[in-house]
Amino acid sequence: MSLVALGPEGTFSHEVAELVGADSITLVPTIREVFREVAENGRQGLVPLENSEAGGVGPTLDGLMAYRVFITAEIFMPVHHFLVAPSGVREIGTLFVHPQTHEQCSEVIEQLGAEVIHTSSNAASAKAALQRAGSGAIVSRKAAELYGLHILRSNVENNPDNVTRFVCIDATPGETEKPAKCSILVDPESDRAGLLYDLLGVFSRKEINLTRIESRPSKRGMGRYVFFMDITYSPACPGAIEELKTLTNVRNLGCYSRMEVPGWTC
Amino acid sequence: MSLVALGPEGTFSHEVAELVGADSITLVPTIREVFREVAENGRQGLVPLENSEAGGVGPTLDGLMAYRVFITAEIFMPVHHFLVAPSGVREIGTLFVHPQTHEQCSEVIEQLGAEVIHTSSNAASAKAALQRAGSGAIVSRKAAELYGLHILRSNVENNPDNVTRFVCIDATPGETEKPAKCSILVDPESDRAGLLYDLLGVFSRKEINLTRIESRPSKRGMGRYVFFMDITYSPACPGAIEELKTLTNVRNLGCYSRMEVPGWTC
Repeated sequence: MSLVALGPEGTFSHEVAELVGADSITLVPTIREVFREVAENGRQGLVPLENSEAGGVGPTLDGLMAYRVFITAEIFMPVHHFLVAPSGVREIGTLFVHPQTHEQCSEVIEQLGAEVIHTSSNAASAKAALQRAGSGAIVSRKAAELYGLHILRSNVENNPDNVTRFVCIDATPGETEKPAKCSILVDPESDRAGLLYDLLGVFSRKEINLTRIESRPSKRGMGRYVFFMDITYSPACPGAIEELKTLTNVRNLGCYSRMEVPGWTC
Repeated sequence: MSLVALGPEGTFSHEVAELVGADSITLVPTIREVFREVAENGRQGLVPLENSEAGGVGPTLDGLMAYRVFITAEIFMPVHHFLVAPSGVREIGTLFVHPQTHEQCSEVIEQLGAEVIHTSSNAASAKAALQRAGSGAIVSRKAAELYGLHILRSNVENNPDNVTRFVCIDATPGETEKPAKCSILVDPESDRAGLLYDLLGVFSRKEINLTRIESRPSKRGMGRYVFFMDITYSPACPGAIEELKTLTNVRNLGCYSRMEVPGWTC
């Protein structure tokens, strides 16, 4: 398996790509670039979809809307963060942190009282802390090791059960014999009142369990949304998805199973 | 009216606070700080709730979950962004941009090909561009003027109909004679399948129009969400909200009307 994922070296995406046993990994600078490589060059990709503290990952949701790709597997990663600084730094005047990491570690950041500068990845935070005197960063253990940063405090996430859900994406649907879940994207053409209720009614009648619903702006103006829905797989799912299609625009994003990583329980 | 809003000078929050006619404005460094001032010190606050391109504003949704406050008014602001640089800069090597602004202007940023550094507000982007040679920023017209930056390109947002919805928050409910909308926060204790369908059924039976539903992690572990719902006000709303409370944990975030700003049509 060859995977495209968000870089640079030391991101959580990089770590997950290594642990799921990819033979080769290509790191690209943005999540959008991962989608482009998958949709246009037939690569397989790995992207973060949601975090238990910070919620849906905007660029991934937008990528699923913009590109014809399918989810082929999901992976749940327990995520721990570390307050780090170059050795010798005693007081952190400036803290480099990715916005998603900021949301996951907001309590310790508030206590710290340093000037906060947002970055485009955890690895970028590590690099930036090396370049400015008196600064620190919040990064993964792997990034701390890779960039030779000293760990000042471990597990600074607000919630010790912090988990990020990653998904593998592909230009063609996966062929899982026993999928665990299906994901669909609902794009209502109109704002008909009660449409969402009618859609959920299809699941209710077929006893299908909705595990997640997330709205996202349709980009067609304020007050218009698309919906990402995840449902527990059952033999009734394909029929239910066909029935939804009679009600509005529905795209099946794929039925897939969970990929387990030894040692990760979440 | 005295308002607390996100600073520093030149943020969109600052601009809205001025235009709605606040007598005095206190600018604080984070959205969380706005909520704290409202909940603990009895101030009135102004916060961005959602954008038509980038979606819900995480720190505001988290503030509504964490603090006992009420929404007392909503304001829709047409949002335009400007690519700026200190005078004399011809090529932008580094671009400073707030993550929400990045999402709203992703197309022009991609074309630009500069190194992107995220900041904590549009005003912070403007300040940073002044301090580093060969850098630029994407900010509001007001921030460009305030910080003396040269406008290289106007209206660089992906969508010309870009709108941000702000809300006023208060420690006590508003007293609007003719509210337009009600907002509620649903926090399901259990993950009972079909609960969401039952909740929407209450609105359906009472012919209440759901205008927005947004999920957000409950912070109690992956796969557990709370729901923010907005409904169009009708005399049936108070009864419907009481009925929802018999089904699960529901908080009425307030019934309120829209505040119009002369010259803004969106």
